[in-house]
Amino acid sequence: MAATRRPGRNHLFVPGPTNIPDRVMRAMMVQSEDHRSVDFPSLTKPLFEDTKKVFGSTEGTIFLFPASGTGIWESALSNTLARGDKVLAARFGQFSHLWIDMAQRLGLDVVVQEEEWGTGAKPEKIEEALRADKNHEIKAVMVVHNETATGVTSNIGAVRKAIDAAGHPALLFVDGVSSIGSLPFKADEWKVDCAIAGSQKGLMLPAGLGVICVSQKALKAAEGQSGRNDRLARVYFDWEDQKKQNPTGYFPYTPPLPLLYGLREALACLFEEGLENVYHRHAVLGEATRQAVAAWGLKTCAKSPEWNSDTVTAILAPEGVDAAKIIKHAYVRYNLALGAGLSQVAGKVFRIGHVGDLNELSLLGAIAGAEMSLIDNGVKVTPGSGVAAASSYLRENPLAKA
Amino acid sequence: MAATRRPGRNHLFVPGPTNIPDRVMRAMMVQSEDHRSVDFPSLTKPLFEDTKKVFGSTEGTIFLFPASGTGIWESALSNTLARGDKVLAARFGQFSHLWIDMAQRLGLDVVVQEEEWGTGAKPEKIEEALRADKNHEIKAVMVVHNETATGVTSNIGAVRKAIDAAGHPALLFVDGVSSIGSLPFKADEWKVDCAIAGSQKGLMLPAGLGVICVSQKALKAAEGQSGRNDRLARVYFDWEDQKKQNPTGYFPYTPPLPLLYGLREALACLFEEGLENVYHRHAVLGEATRQAVAAWGLKTCAKSPEWNSDTVTAILAPEGVDAAKIIKHAYVRYNLALGAGLSQVAGKVFRIGHVGDLNELSLLGAIAGAEMSLIDNGVKVTPGSGVAAASSYLRENPLAKA
Amino acid sequence: MAATRRPGRNHLFVPGPTNIPDRVMRAMMVQSEDHRSVDFPSLTKPLFEDTKKVFGSTEGTIFLFPASGTGIWESALSNTLARGDKVLAARFGQFSHLWIDMAQRLGLDVVVQEEEWGTGAKPEKIEEALRADKNHEIKAVMVVHNETATGVTSNIGAVRKAIDAAGHPALLFVDGVSSIGSLPFKADEWKVDCAIAGSQKGLMLPAGLGVICVSQKALKAAEGQSGRNDRLARVYFDWEDQKKQNPTGYFPYTPPLPLLYGLREALACLFEEGLENVYHRHAVLGEATRQAVAAWGLKTCAKSPEWNSDTVTAILAPEGVDAAKIIKHAYVRYNLALGAGLSQVAGKVFRIGHVGDLNELSLLGAIAGAEMSLIDNGVKVTPGSGVAAASSYLRENPLAKA
Amino acid sequence: MAATRRPGRNHLFVPGPTNIPDRVMRAMMVQSEDHRSVDFPSLTKPLFEDTKKVFGSTEGTIFLFPASGTGIWESALSNTLARGDKVLAARFGQFSHLWIDMAQRLGLDVVVQEEEWGTGAKPEKIEEALRADKNHEIKAVMVVHNETATGVTSNIGAVRKAIDAAGHPALLFVDGVSSIGSLPFKADEWKVDCAIAGSQKGLMLPAGLGVICVSQKALKAAEGQSGRNDRLARVYFDWEDQKKQNPTGYFPYTPPLPLLYGLREALACLFEEGLENVYHRHAVLGEATRQAVAAWGLKTCAKSPEWNSDTVTAILAPEGVDAAKIIKHAYVRYNLALGAGLSQVAGKVFRIGHVGDLNELSLLGAIAGAEMSLIDNGVKVTPGSGVAAASSYLRENPLAKA
Repeated sequence: MAATRRPGRNHLFVPGPTNIPDRVMRAMMVQSEDHRSVDFPSLTKPLFEDTKKVFGSTEGTIFLFPASGTGIWESALSNTLARGDKVLAARFGQFSHLWIDMAQRLGLDVVVQEEEWGTGAKPEKIEEALRADKNHEIKAVMVVHNETATGVTSNIGAVRKAIDAAGHPALLFVDGVSSIGSLPFKADEWKVDCAIAGSQKGLMLPAGLGVICVSQKALKAAEGQSGRNDRLARVYFDWEDQKKQNPTGYFPYTPPLPLLYGLREALACLFEEGLENVYHRHAVLGEATRQAVAAWGLKTCAKSPEWNSDTVTAILAPEGVDAAKIIKHAYVRYNLALGAGLSQVAGKVFRIGHVGDLNELSLLGAIAGAEMSLIDNGVKVTPGSGVAAASSYLRENPLAKA
Repeated sequence: MAATRRPGRNHLFVPGPTNIPDRVMRAMMVQSEDHRSVDFPSLTKPLFEDTKKVFGSTEGTIFLFPASGTGIWESALSNTLARGDKVLAARFGQFSHLWIDMAQRLGLDVVVQEEEWGTGAKPEKIEEALRADKNHEIKAVMVVHNETATGVTSNIGAVRKAIDAAGHPALLFVDGVSSIGSLPFKADEWKVDCAIAGSQKGLMLPAGLGVICVSQKALKAAEGQSGRNDRLARVYFDWEDQKKQNPTGYFPYTPPLPLLYGLREALACLFEEGLENVYHRHAVLGEATRQAVAAWGLKTCAKSPEWNSDTVTAILAPEGVDAAKIIKHAYVRYNLALGAGLSQVAGKVFRIGHVGDLNELSLLGAIAGAEMSLIDNGVKVTPGSGVAAASSYLRENPLAKA
Repeated sequence: MAATRRPGRNHLFVPGPTNIPDRVMRAMMVQSEDHRSVDFPSLTKPLFEDTKKVFGSTEGTIFLFPASGTGIWESALSNTLARGDKVLAARFGQFSHLWIDMAQRLGLDVVVQEEEWGTGAKPEKIEEALRADKNHEIKAVMVVHNETATGVTSNIGAVRKAIDAAGHPALLFVDGVSSIGSLPFKADEWKVDCAIAGSQKGLMLPAGLGVICVSQKALKAAEGQSGRNDRLARVYFDWEDQKKQNPTGYFPYTPPLPLLYGLREALACLFEEGLENVYHRHAVLGEATRQAVAAWGLKTCAKSPEWNSDTVTAILAPEGVDAAKIIKHAYVRYNLALGAGLSQVAGKVFRIGHVGDLNELSLLGAIAGAEMSLIDNGVKVTPGSGVAAASSYLRENPLAKA
Repeated sequence: MAATRRPGRNHLFVPGPTNIPDRVMRAMMVQSEDHRSVDFPSLTKPLFEDTKKVFGSTEGTIFLFPASGTGIWESALSNTLARGDKVLAARFGQFSHLWIDMAQRLGLDVVVQEEEWGTGAKPEKIEEALRADKNHEIKAVMVVHNETATGVTSNIGAVRKAIDAAGHPALLFVDGVSSIGSLPFKADEWKVDCAIAGSQKGLMLPAGLGVICVSQKALKAAEGQSGRNDRLARVYFDWEDQKKQNPTGYFPYTPPLPLLYGLREALACLFEEGLENVYHRHAVLGEATRQAVAAWGLKTCAKSPEWNSDTVTAILAPEGVDAAKIIKHAYVRYNLALGAGLSQVAGKVFRIGHVGDLNELSLLGAIAGAEMSLIDNGVKVTPGSGVAAASSYLRENPLAKA
């Protein structure tokens, strides 16, 4: 079986890594070059500026690390905080859980707000906790913007308002790995101090380039760690080394050239489509997916529309049906890669990613495939119903804004 | 508008050129090399053998020309025939028409059997014509195996039987451009003297490599032209030059290296899937497409099931609806490339190609897109009906044989 | 041995196919697309205009065929001439020989001027022959601009003057396969009626795209063939079909997409460097090569400096030394592909191609390799002498014009 | 000037990143895929085994991080040591300096043995220091195998003997970034506890994949850190997370797919050539380079032959000549990228990297280019002398072992 070729392409609908546009693929096909040459900064210097636009920032500082998003989480925490520092974080899915776990393993004292999976960060509870923190022991608030595991988007603007309402000086760290470049993100307006992105989602690249947009306030917090005995040990992810080299277009260690060239092209893709159009497209494709789910008579993991994510929809399998079987069958029989349920929702949920470089017919193919796998697994679904609902919505709602 | 980037991939459902598998794309990414080197034959010599399998031949001789299929048509005619020679050909679509036109322009005397578009070659009429040709003035019978313009497949085995029944020595030339590598083809069994293929259909490559499988009888006919005053002038497409060089692995002029490397990989793809599975898959995808057409309440150009092509379905637009608008709208709005109606059927027909490297969900995406374009153009079609019918069929009929 | 990997890259110094620049390689990495789409002409229409610049033409018409240069030779002859037409051609190497052979096989009556190999076309003899042709029976003069087999460049401007001096209306056909895009070429100024190029030399692409630049006079000659009984049979290479489709950006049959995208990028490369710089660079690299040859104490096949080609240098092996061994050893031991001697000069000559995308250090590596193979084969050469001479010249003569 | 295209390829002779073989380039051209699929382990599981061979290990454990070599330095230190732990390290160049600097910044207590730049680690001094450390406070010995900045290779086998002679239990950490895959490396025989490699040197890939081979003893040391209050904070580079996932073929976070596919192909390249041949080739090319340096009358940074590196040669510019000018001129005028002198030797040294996928003629081109830049900068060098010396050596010494 393994030796047999599977015809046609794989339909990739996990919520990352996402499909790489052909032109980005081409752009990454580069021979090695001297990353200390006089020509090199003409590639890199514009990258630092252009990448900021995707974060909705003009005032931030971009750092690019050869790393996955997990490394950038660590970069945010270890540059700005000291051992034993208190941080506030909401947990409502696998990725918010893992970030909290990281903070704890790094030696931070995490005040965890447990939220029901299928919901997200609650600004009012954050405000309350911060108000209660009279001595400002909480140094940072950590929020996962888009919880990939449950298909839930939290309202970062509201979190910012909550922090401000509490008059609290805590830093605001936002994991935007599966939102930045796909959902509206306003690092400056929301005063996000560390906004964290990976290359393999909205940036439409392979994994391997971690991106962080850091505010002036966070840079200052990092400087304050210098020389402290209880600073969190780090060198690779240290912003200081980057700060010394980046302004002239260089890096403290050898950068991954294909990803830098790819980033340049991916940004060009986003800007040519227009970020507003990109966000609109994700909203339309997200809603189309939800229309299909409703037509199937199924429910999303997201508890109410306010939590709906426009980059990934987590769908609850009906009682008694193993979601893992739906996923495996879709993959083996129809060459369709769906996202699995993780941790608490393992076996209960399957996920359709609709993030990155995608259009109507790709999504409809995936919806058709998910439907076929549901039916094959005994779920009572009217054949064609998902595509009917989604396509009717898509006919009325163009991907590009007028 | 032109500058705006269109997100996601183009859904290519013209009946060729077809989607190139990623691994074939990779294989073609080759630097130039010396095509006279001692290493070169290790690439080329197996190609001549392996390519034969796709033609269903062990006894034929393969020639590879840097050319499109049109050039190979000319190669077949100009190597074996002389000015004024009589040939018999059926016309039932744009490609059978063009081949006849070529024969006439080359100075051949074509006996044309006009068949209704939507049908194909009629073995009984061919037999009749050959029986009537007592003096054996007809030197060759030309048949288009799969008429891409109308989605019609002729029965080459029956044509061979007709020729044999008439006891006629005419050569049999078959245009298999849109069938070879996708539909069962048996050059040896059917005693096809020139079987013609292009690279950009079932062989899943870009256009630019013309392939012909030539029988011993045709080679002899070509040799018979040598020195004749009325031979059809040719050098580029001359088999003689190839015959001198090919056996040692070389070519009379610089070959297109990427296509040779691509051919090697494309053949590997076909053989790994298994030619029987490849044929079965095309049959299943073809039938699924026809199920969708029926669910839409539309008719195919093919007049009856016996003529159905499993590589392309030509669909009649309802009275009063311009098929060209359906096609253009699908392209502009949904990034779906459908085939246009040509010549007699221009504006009346749109075509869904289902040839080459393809699987269920890709096809269902295209069916969804065609349906959306139909509805957007005012055709009364139940949303989701095409996908429902096709997907139900596909669920019951796996792409690979058991 | 065959299974063992050879480290490092192959050093390709045959006079074509030539090294493909990385960016051209990237540009060719394209999925299939509908070559009948509304978008397609935005790729193709500028190609017809831009390609003319490389021919030194504004008044000509470009045709692009999926074919090698050999096909374009045939295209020139078969569109403009009739069976039995008289043409005048000089023979002084393998490629001028092959073109004459083709003309004869097509049924033309070739008046051959035999010239010593190592020299080229003699304008005075051409003038004489044309003056003697009082009845203007000679319909065309065929000249190979750059005879790749001997490293000889003929003076096309002088040939044009000779034709004009004779007051003769013959068409002028020039094979520029190994000159166009590398040596100065002035189709308009020299009134070249058919200028023939291939993709795999100065255009820095794989083989597979034949290019011809046709004058108004030649187009008229082609039209004059229409309907004639003695016209040379052709369809694939017929200009008429191209003329009907090209102006709107389309082709009569499926074009080789990667080569069209590659051509666009290759032209961009040439224009960015500047054609004058490209020509200058070839002149400098050609002279550097000849300096090395002189330092080795060897002689070029070109009999005197006026015949020197700046795209390829054919070098005479010393008496008693088999040039084929020098070539084979260079390939097997040093991964260096040199050009072989052909026909008359087989075993006597080895060739260093210096055409296409090339710079000083690549050439010096090849010179070093040729020198090593010479020494290994017992030729008395001072180690390093070739590189010393060539590099001294190159230090004094920058590749780009001031 | 910047807009002008530079013809030909860049000659990359920095000691990393190195030239990527074409087939590795092809292998990396992969679309995204689900890294949690059932197919994925068939790619990854063999990687863990095959990569060990390059380290000369069968008993070690491989971890693959999306990171540069700097990250892997940190991975070694932070997994096995605790804050304030004492380590012993020799400093004799920029990279040994940076690693020591990292250790200090991580909070380790580094006993530094300063060695003259141009020499390396001194086993006898290491033995002495360890003997003196009666209480076994030194937890690890850190050695840079190949100091890229000065072109110096230390003798790791001798270091191991020194540690054993002292009867000391310290771990042995070796930076093999610019040696592994190019110079003989015997992790098992030398009992190296952490052997550190990057993807962009001997592994012939772009930067972005850090590789470490960890001994059982080091794994045990890492486990011993668990739960300790003074453990070095880390999550991204934690071995524990990898150990949980790797055995089934998965990773704790999204891996960089192109680099994994590239690694598979790069290993295939190394094994097809044969590791012994790879090492031999580097030795031959290294010696050829040194022959050229001697012929120029220049000296290497390496103080005596025992320190010579076979992956990079650092060459002292003559008194009064700015090495930076030689490098810049080589780059700007000849498109040759040489390595710069760093820190102590900035402006005094230029470096020729001869590491990775390389053969004779590429190297000779670079030697020619370096020589031209020397002469252009006023250094008295006999033209051709470097190539003469190197090529004479190379003619006598084939790259592959008999």
